[in-house]
Amino acid sequence: MLNLAKPTDPAWVGRALVDLDEVLVDHAHCEKKAASTAVSLLFRYPEHGALLEPLSRLAREELQHFELMLSHLDRLGIRFYRQLPSPYAGELMKAIRPNEPGRAVDTLLCLSLIEARSCERMKLLAEALEEPTLKELYTSLLASEARHHQTYVDLARTIELREDIRGRLQELAEHEAAVLAASPEMPRMHA
Amino acid sequence: MLNLAKPTDPAWVGRALVDLDEVLVDHAHCEKKAASTAVSLLFRYPEHGALLEPLSRLAREELQHFELMLSHLDRLGIRFYRQLPSPYAGELMKAIRPNEPGRAVDTLLCLSLIEARSCERMKLLAEALEEPTLKELYTSLLASEARHHQTYVDLARTIELREDIRGRLQELAEHEAAVLAASPEMPRMHA
Repeated sequence: MLNLAKPTDPAWVGRALVDLDEVLVDHAHCEKKAASTAVSLLFRYPEHGALLEPLSRLAREELQHFELMLSHLDRLGIRFYRQLPSPYAGELMKAIRPNEPGRAVDTLLCLSLIEARSCERMKLLAEALEEPTLKELYTSLLASEARHHQTYVDLARTIELREDIRGRLQELAEHEAAVLAASPEMPRMHA
Repeated sequence: MLNLAKPTDPAWVGRALVDLDEVLVDHAHCEKKAASTAVSLLFRYPEHGALLEPLSRLAREELQHFELMLSHLDRLGIRFYRQLPSPYAGELMKAIRPNEPGRAVDTLLCLSLIEARSCERMKLLAEALEEPTLKELYTSLLASEARHHQTYVDLARTIELREDIRGRLQELAEHEAAVLAASPEMPRMHA
């Protein structure tokens, strides 16, 4: 359903729990980045009417999750701070074709894969976490991530035919799994 | 209350009504830009905890207004399109001091003045417009703009003392009025 080519290495969740504070801060940054990326597409594609309202609504939801993560950090006494991001998103985006409409399609599909990976990993966190409030947080968030994954795939379909999208999504999913496999071990949502 | 140094030239609203379609499209762009600017400050000042949640909420409201403007454009059969922006914001921001904390204070105060000018002009539009739905739209929006103006002033006060802020706001308000007076006549919210 999530279109991921490979599941997360089971060792990831153990590492995440060891450095949970850093993973939670990274997660807050991820929500902020997701909002910012959706907003940036409003500037890049003003003429793609079908993208605008869904991207704006998506950005609002990411900001709401950013605020939610800030409130959890606050509750847990963790300060929000500038953090070295994992190379994941940058490496993933290198597969984006430079010319339109491929650029738009690939950008949307890469974003759909980031959401899919977040969803998969939030499920792992929800299962592994013992603190009930955080367990509940991740259980509630993973549904949104799955929905965002689907929204991005649907938006890509407004630009290119369904059949072409399916093949390209599979290619990019293979690339995403390879990027993740090559990522350094860092306490991050996507590493 | 809005801290503006000079009121809008009464001729502006007449010109805006003549090219209303273009002003409405510009207004949608303004909401999008306001959201984007608030989000960019989340990246610039992660360590300023007091800014994060208010800026995120503000960005969400701007995005909601962007969606609202898109729905009105749609209702009126006006296509959203890429538009040459007025030089206003760029010229206004030239007064921002380059070093922190002056840069943060001035950025927030300039944003407060943009919101104040929007509020003042939306009031003029609300009074002058005859189409009831648009009249109602601008009446409802001008309250948010006044609130956003105050939020930005309050956020500047989390960085510098109240007394210093007052003087700097007055200086920047004079600059804002001068920028507006020197602006070319274009059918824009801020020209």
